Amino acid sequence: MNPIHGGDIAGYRLRHGVDPLDFSASLNPLGLPDGVRAALHAAVDTVSPYPDPWCRALTADLAAVHTVPAENVLVTNGAADAIFRLVEALRPRRVLMPVPAFSEYGQALAVTGSDVREHVLRREDGFRLLPNILDRITPDVDAVFLCQPNNPVGEVIDPELLLEVLHKTELLGCSLVVDECFCDLLDDPDRYSLGERLREARRLFIIRSFTKLYSIAGLRLGYCLCADAKTVEAMRGVGQPWSVSTLAEAAGRAAIRETEFVQTTRRIIREERTWLMDALAGLGAHIYGSRANYIFFTVPSDDLAVRLKWDGILIRDCRNFSGLGPGCYRVAVRLRHENKRLVAALEKALPAAAHDLFKEEKAGETS
Amino acid sequence: MNPIHGGDIAGYRLRHGVDPLDFSASLNPLGLPDGVRAALHAAVDTVSPYPDPWCRALTADLAAVHTVPAENVLVTNGAADAIFRLVEALRPRRVLMPVPAFSEYGQALAVTGSDVREHVLRREDGFRLLPNILDRITPDVDAVFLCQPNNPVGEVIDPELLLEVLHKTELLGCSLVVDECFCDLLDDPDRYSLGERLREARRLFIIRSFTKLYSIAGLRLGYCLCADAKTVEAMRGVGQPWSVSTLAEAAGRAAIRETEFVQTTRRIIREERTWLMDALAGLGAHIYGSRANYIFFTVPSDDLAVRLKWDGILIRDCRNFSGLGPGCYRVAVRLRHENKRLVAALEKALPAAAHDLFKEEKAGETS
Repeated sequence: MNPIHGGDIAGYRLRHGVDPLDFSASLNPLGLPDGVRAALHAAVDTVSPYPDPWCRALTADLAAVHTVPAENVLVTNGAADAIFRLVEALRPRRVLMPVPAFSEYGQALAVTGSDVREHVLRREDGFRLLPNILDRITPDVDAVFLCQPNNPVGEVIDPELLLEVLHKTELLGCSLVVDECFCDLLDDPDRYSLGERLREARRLFIIRSFTKLYSIAGLRLGYCLCADAKTVEAMRGVGQPWSVSTLAEAAGRAAIRETEFVQTTRRIIREERTWLMDALAGLGAHIYGSRANYIFFTVPSDDLAVRLKWDGILIRDCRNFSGLGPGCYRVAVRLRHENKRLVAALEKALPAAAHDLFKEEKAGETS
Repeated sequence: MNPIHGGDIAGYRLRHGVDPLDFSASLNPLGLPDGVRAALHAAVDTVSPYPDPWCRALTADLAAVHTVPAENVLVTNGAADAIFRLVEALRPRRVLMPVPAFSEYGQALAVTGSDVREHVLRREDGFRLLPNILDRITPDVDAVFLCQPNNPVGEVIDPELLLEVLHKTELLGCSLVVDECFCDLLDDPDRYSLGERLREARRLFIIRSFTKLYSIAGLRLGYCLCADAKTVEAMRGVGQPWSVSTLAEAAGRAAIRETEFVQTTRRIIREERTWLMDALAGLGAHIYGSRANYIFFTVPSDDLAVRLKWDGILIRDCRNFSGLGPGCYRVAVRLRHENKRLVAALEKALPAAAHDLFKEEKAGETS
């Protein structure tokens, strides 16, 4: 079975008959905006015909939002569909990718048999991308995959360094793929997005998602922005024409209008992130990055996710990310009463877990 | 832009501000079943979390319906997703395919660069698959793609011949892909489906759709049945894990329970198909196949689709199907009042169109 994001909610529900409190997927804790809910109910009676294969209405809306021509926008069945189509359309022989990174890139690049050169972000640098990445963008690299902010750490790439990377890739005719799926959940998205550079950079691909900000992961809706209309056309051709459902398009059109919801979201995320980071630090967790709506931390416990599951709480064990290992976790920032439940459960689970690890270390020393 | 099914409804709506009467997509004319509509409204508030990447609930339902283990079922984002994934997982070097056939196979096989050997179904044979197909299944053929019933002609493959094809492909270790997307809309689906052979045939792949029977094309829901669990796993790996939306899975679960709706549908399709075939024959159309919920005919007019569009009616001009040409059309079987509107519009359009063609032929003779 494929690796999946964080906790397996559907599986938990099938086994326990109730929903867990899910900190493993980094979705907006406010849930579905009212306007999107209303749009979905209204769209139920429009699902009989095939969807518009070009999603013309939503594409026009997105082109207006990003001030690019419609031919530079491809709406997809979630951002994951954009990643798989982009990789299939580019078929890069050699890819440079900082790790840890979102697992989908690797899965998609395995299908095309691309040679992936990992650039390990070091824990002692706080998992930050440093200027030494520039030396690794050599003429034999066909594509660079970045994530702004990084997932799962949540660290941002310095805007000036990002521009240097863009400049070097353009110079070398190398594609630059920037996953901005969590960019809108930063405090200051405009400072970190490369959206403004789309018109001048022909090999820049920006991947975006409706999933996280509008809490509609179950609907599947993402898109790709790119100045090169030919590659956008190629991305259409490598998969079915009707990948985006009528309901997803309707939800996306309503979501774009939810500007107040987005402002409220940013305020709540900022407040709750600070509160939760303080609480986690108080429990001895070491926190890295965490600039968006999720917190990445390390603790001396390798079975924290299992222990919290007993308490009905799912968190993301990050050990299977390349460049990470046991004791690395990611939790979403949720509402105060939920964050309090997480902290209470951690208080219970942590000393015992740390104690176990301590015993294991001792056993390792004597064996 | 990609070739698309039949008429471009969304485009028509954008240009004219109203919906056309659509005979170009072969969907159930009864529309969405009430149970599916209710399930969709109920599921709106469940779209926040990621969908179950394994669609475990619907997979279990389908496994029960087809009496196969769950590991032999892959739920997909419409049947088109199943076709693209299957082709990517098999990556057949050489494919044998009777034509005319549904355009998606060719699109998917273009992505893998497969060599497609077309087996032309002849008009003088009524576009029927004949036993000479068996001679073309040679050891260098990796996969055979069949469509039961055929699209766009709507002719069925004789069940005995189909078993002979299955036997020969199994003997040669060749994959047999049978698209049964319209099988449930035949009068006697059980006689024509290969579903019963799934347990014994390791290289048999059956592709099915919820789209047509339940009139939910905008939702995207299909599946693939195959006894070889390893290939099912491979199909999962060649695309994103979350391709099926939460709403599509909920609709599918409700649809399976709509047994009375299916019986009513078959009765109405049978009655209306007979009525519409008689009316078309009365207008001088030559009808082929047409065993499911669509009618395929030829007339001496190459611009009938354009003429009907002026009247707000979309039909499928089949000239771009391999093995067909101008003057070939497909229309869906709809409800009586809609079928009457189609026939009235055809009565108006046909003599004039035939007249034009006659003039063209004359001009061709003298030039």
